[in-house]
Amino acid sequence: MNSKSIFNSKTQILVTGGAGFIGSHLVDELIKLNCRVIVYDNFSTGKKIFISSHLGNPNFKLIKADLNETKKLSQAMKGVDIVFHLAAHADVRSGFDNHFIDHEQNLEMTQNVLEAMFKQKVKKIAFASTSSVYGDAFIHPTPEDYILRPTSLYGASKAACEQYLHAYSAYYQIETWIFRFVSFVGERYTHGIIYDLLQKLAKNSHELELLSDGSPKKSSLYVKDGIRAIIKAINTTNNINKNKFNIFNLGHDKYLTVREIVELIIKTAAYSNVKQKWLGKKSNWQGDNEFVLLDTSKIKSLGWQTQVSLSEGIVKTVRYLQAHPELF
Amino acid sequence: MNSKSIFNSKTQILVTGGAGFIGSHLVDELIKLNCRVIVYDNFSTGKKIFISSHLGNPNFKLIKADLNETKKLSQAMKGVDIVFHLAAHADVRSGFDNHFIDHEQNLEMTQNVLEAMFKQKVKKIAFASTSSVYGDAFIHPTPEDYILRPTSLYGASKAACEQYLHAYSAYYQIETWIFRFVSFVGERYTHGIIYDLLQKLAKNSHELELLSDGSPKKSSLYVKDGIRAIIKAINTTNNINKNKFNIFNLGHDKYLTVREIVELIIKTAAYSNVKQKWLGKKSNWQGDNEFVLLDTSKIKSLGWQTQVSLSEGIVKTVRYLQAHPELF
Repeated sequence: MNSKSIFNSKTQILVTGGAGFIGSHLVDELIKLNCRVIVYDNFSTGKKIFISSHLGNPNFKLIKADLNETKKLSQAMKGVDIVFHLAAHADVRSGFDNHFIDHEQNLEMTQNVLEAMFKQKVKKIAFASTSSVYGDAFIHPTPEDYILRPTSLYGASKAACEQYLHAYSAYYQIETWIFRFVSFVGERYTHGIIYDLLQKLAKNSHELELLSDGSPKKSSLYVKDGIRAIIKAINTTNNINKNKFNIFNLGHDKYLTVREIVELIIKTAAYSNVKQKWLGKKSNWQGDNEFVLLDTSKIKSLGWQTQVSLSEGIVKTVRYLQAHPELF
Repeated sequence: MNSKSIFNSKTQILVTGGAGFIGSHLVDELIKLNCRVIVYDNFSTGKKIFISSHLGNPNFKLIKADLNETKKLSQAMKGVDIVFHLAAHADVRSGFDNHFIDHEQNLEMTQNVLEAMFKQKVKKIAFASTSSVYGDAFIHPTPEDYILRPTSLYGASKAACEQYLHAYSAYYQIETWIFRFVSFVGERYTHGIIYDLLQKLAKNSHELELLSDGSPKKSSLYVKDGIRAIIKAINTTNNINKNKFNIFNLGHDKYLTVREIVELIIKTAAYSNVKQKWLGKKSNWQGDNEFVLLDTSKIKSLGWQTQVSLSEGIVKTVRYLQAHPELF
């Protein structure tokens, strides 16, 4: 595959959010493939430690800037072959209390990225979307052509980004890859249920209060499995797709209930006698989806498969967070 | 039906864009149903003449204001039972040259409407969406559960509005009706292909330059047929739909080619010996869709049907515009 790979020593790549959890794993992989990589990150949630191994590498460039600094962004786009737009406000919960944060940080920043690409004639983009665009789907596993019915403003802002991406793609023949992620887990994971539970347990290991009744069913994907899927999808579909617009679900075939996830976290973290207090709501928070399981037959048809099981991914994440108390 | 109608003398309704082409027809109908109607319009494209027959009616109130005047908007929402949000930037073409106008006037103004509803606890909204959300669909007639792939920023902004509407509906149990319109025609029509052609013909009736090759296929709907559909849909589905989120295509079963439409306009306007110069592109402009035909079986299943044929609608529009040269 690598002989035909578009990821080679001539490829200039810009990764927004490249110092974040998923972004930094992508950067690791792109540097391994000898690409020239620019990380564009405002370090609001990204961390220098995640990309520090590349500092000094002539193929690596770091731009510390915000996506609303449109001149800097446009400058950074010069000569770029493909943009990975991963920077986002990724806390699904907060949109219920703050109705504008997802709009501003996800949709408007994506507009800025698209405008900079338009000005610099960049013709390829990969975008980190989310399973949240489907909302409470009636079909599981949920396929890519399922209707979008987001139940959170996070999901709505990402679904809106997809629409804007499609319009720019149609206007300017921009080859586009949308990846709809389930929750990613693994090394450098810094927010989400595993992080929250370990934080709570560190404060009080006797009693753990949980919002749902434990029944919601969730899938997650080990981050390195996800990165391989992204590279595979782009390399396989590049220039062969007539309408230049590709959507891929990225997730695991299996799911666990929230109760099972919580018990696995407690066990892995080696806490004992934790009294679980389930508050009994059908979802974990307003806008959460009770059942997340994506149909990944499209990405699997390209020859990709998961290498890390659902529980292994969670165990790796717990171990990583326990080894890095400085992240709390 | 009227005995159970939610449209009665106790119903307080706010219509954004209520002085516009479609909005003013809706207002006529709501006033006929004895509702109390507030028109909220900035008169950027709306016209006082369209609503002047209601001035002085105690059931009618006019607020001349912009949707970005959020305090006025919030005030206007007090005690409102249902919002019809029709105000929009409705010129599909201009988004190619101005990448922000649809975002600002459609998505951000819809956000303002949703925020005002949230603040005043308004729990019902009907929204004017568009067939443009489907882009160049592969299935015709196109059903409501078809994927959204807008090819214009107009279509993308409306599709984005739908996503935000869904999130607010899920967060706050707001009953929502999305109506995806094909082009509406009829009295008070003030922009679109019929308007443009009559304007061109008035300037030069010898030669008419046309962007496409005449082959694009378009459906349209007579505005009063559309208004009946909206009232019928809301009355029939109000409070019976579990997920409170309803989407209806509104269109005609038939379509005409652009060449047929142009010839009908020329004939109706009684021009003769017009040399048609077809420039031969596959679409009329960047972002236009070659074939627009919606599956309307959902609205028809509620007992609605068109009363005015496709060509009658166009003929009525030409006659109206010819009788109102002041609109040019």
